[in-house]
Amino acid sequence: MRATVFHAPGDVRVETVPDAAISAPTDALVRVTHACICGSDLWFYRGDAKWQPGWRTGHEWMGIVEDVGSEVTTLKKGDRVIAPFSYCDGDCEYCRKGVQTSCIHGGFWGGAENDGGQGEAVRAPFADATLVALPPEVGDDAALLRSILPLTDVMGTGHHAAVSAGVGPGATVAVMGDGAVGLCGVLAAKRLGAERILIYGRHEARLDLARAFGATDVITDRDKAGIEIGRERTSGGAECVLECVGTESSMAQAIGVARPGGIVGFVGVPYGAAAGLNLGRMFSHNISLRGGVASVRKYIPELLVDVLAGKLDPGPVLDLAVDLDGVPRGYEAMDKRSATKVMVKL
Amino acid sequence: MRATVFHAPGDVRVETVPDAAISAPTDALVRVTHACICGSDLWFYRGDAKWQPGWRTGHEWMGIVEDVGSEVTTLKKGDRVIAPFSYCDGDCEYCRKGVQTSCIHGGFWGGAENDGGQGEAVRAPFADATLVALPPEVGDDAALLRSILPLTDVMGTGHHAAVSAGVGPGATVAVMGDGAVGLCGVLAAKRLGAERILIYGRHEARLDLARAFGATDVITDRDKAGIEIGRERTSGGAECVLECVGTESSMAQAIGVARPGGIVGFVGVPYGAAAGLNLGRMFSHNISLRGGVASVRKYIPELLVDVLAGKLDPGPVLDLAVDLDGVPRGYEAMDKRSATKVMVKL
Repeated sequence: MRATVFHAPGDVRVETVPDAAISAPTDALVRVTHACICGSDLWFYRGDAKWQPGWRTGHEWMGIVEDVGSEVTTLKKGDRVIAPFSYCDGDCEYCRKGVQTSCIHGGFWGGAENDGGQGEAVRAPFADATLVALPPEVGDDAALLRSILPLTDVMGTGHHAAVSAGVGPGATVAVMGDGAVGLCGVLAAKRLGAERILIYGRHEARLDLARAFGATDVITDRDKAGIEIGRERTSGGAECVLECVGTESSMAQAIGVARPGGIVGFVGVPYGAAAGLNLGRMFSHNISLRGGVASVRKYIPELLVDVLAGKLDPGPVLDLAVDLDGVPRGYEAMDKRSATKVMVKL
Repeated sequence: MRATVFHAPGDVRVETVPDAAISAPTDALVRVTHACICGSDLWFYRGDAKWQPGWRTGHEWMGIVEDVGSEVTTLKKGDRVIAPFSYCDGDCEYCRKGVQTSCIHGGFWGGAENDGGQGEAVRAPFADATLVALPPEVGDDAALLRSILPLTDVMGTGHHAAVSAGVGPGATVAVMGDGAVGLCGVLAAKRLGAERILIYGRHEARLDLARAFGATDVITDRDKAGIEIGRERTSGGAECVLECVGTESSMAQAIGVARPGGIVGFVGVPYGAAAGLNLGRMFSHNISLRGGVASVRKYIPELLVDVLAGKLDPGPVLDLAVDLDGVPRGYEAMDKRSATKVMVKL
């Protein structure tokens, strides 16, 4: 089959790899219909992560079940499924507690050992626990499938930031970052009843989308000036802050704009963010830090209901579509920020 | 009146200062009967904090009301009162939310502008909101007063760590530090229903007290070895971790021994602790950091009920008593660790 392979920074290629195949009785073999390129894929694409040549890429994908192992009971050939960005056994202590990303038998798509989503097919371990079947009425509705696709990662991740930050009805929320996760954070905050949503970013088109998603205030200033304006606009800081970037400056801004007693929900893959943690301010004002890698699996069913009901649509964060051969071009577009997030339609 | 004054690192003196006096109609004037020396007083005593010569010391105290301002309605001359380590107006957004330490009109005892507790009397601002009257039946019961005294700070702070870390019935808890706050953290965890309580420390007498307070495991190893043993004893880490020290190594140990999905409640005044924050582990395993300076005022009524009922007794953390003239000797004893915590009996 054909799939995307990492060769070197700036160099991903679509090439022939061994066919995906069932190897355990709890596996499903899924033909990929849709995938995405993730902002976090740019870490290795830019040479900032310890990736090895030959590793497979793509952790956001949906598809149609081709075959199932003998112990799979809830899925069958022909089912349309959505995968969270990590797989899990569904049965360990952490899965039962809703921290599926810490599953003791779990793992992430792609890399050295697993199929990646940016390819024709994927072997999905613990298929009953990992995959979520879409109801038959979804059919081949292209627009609806595009709206569902971000539930593989960014929508669940933005939601995790909002839930971790304690967003509820009437909340004042500040969102760090206008990337796909930050934008989904705005959607999630709005959905959870936030009244005031400030977004920090600098990219005009993305900030326009943020407004359409429910942001009430856009802040383009950074660092000290950004913190000051945020505090001014909220008369002392936001109760709930969503850190959706992972850099030092973003984390510093998140802590800086948090209101005393407030919570920062952090979901940006930490990339220098530790240095931005003003622990003195957190201590003095009882500002909590919660979140981490999102257990998207836990959130898919709940978010899917709203997408199917037309109440939630993160589809617009996917502003460029490519086919499998276009994946390298998709990486390039995201690297140059000419696309917010790329959909791969197989 | 006489009160303790900071002169230089290692040099605190009891000397004559201007008499405490009511200056606002919401003030009370309180004659101090009991005070403590706090582990955090050692920061300036050791020259590690930006303290100026002439500043007044002591933030933990109880006493008897001598006089009240015209707007004080709940207290009268002769009432025995306990003070939390900070004062607050009781009426601002943060006080109403239970984050009294962030009160917009609040402050801390001692320093350049306020009377300290290690002296004969204190002017207490916002007396109705700040002070808690002890019921008359407490009377002059010396043992009971000693059991109540830690509610001014360390018992409320240990409780805040436990509450922040989400301790509840059946919880597995790891406590970093065998100082007075760590010991009170053990008491608080036990009181909240923890089943397993690990304490990290190295001081034999304090660890004995920890066992008497409810600790089930004592760990004297540190750093990597300490983390490994803690994870081993808990089959993967503690759900609730109480960070009661504030140093880099203690925070690193706290994050390291936290179970995936767990919470670190931190109350140790950060003194290098930021460098010990392993944000990568927190992200990968959704480990939260909550807590900060404790709003002891919020907790006094609830804890007092249990002390009066004989269900809670943090008194034994006070293992040395001095009179006002003995305060410099008390600092010395705590600095040399020959005392865990010093009670000043006026």
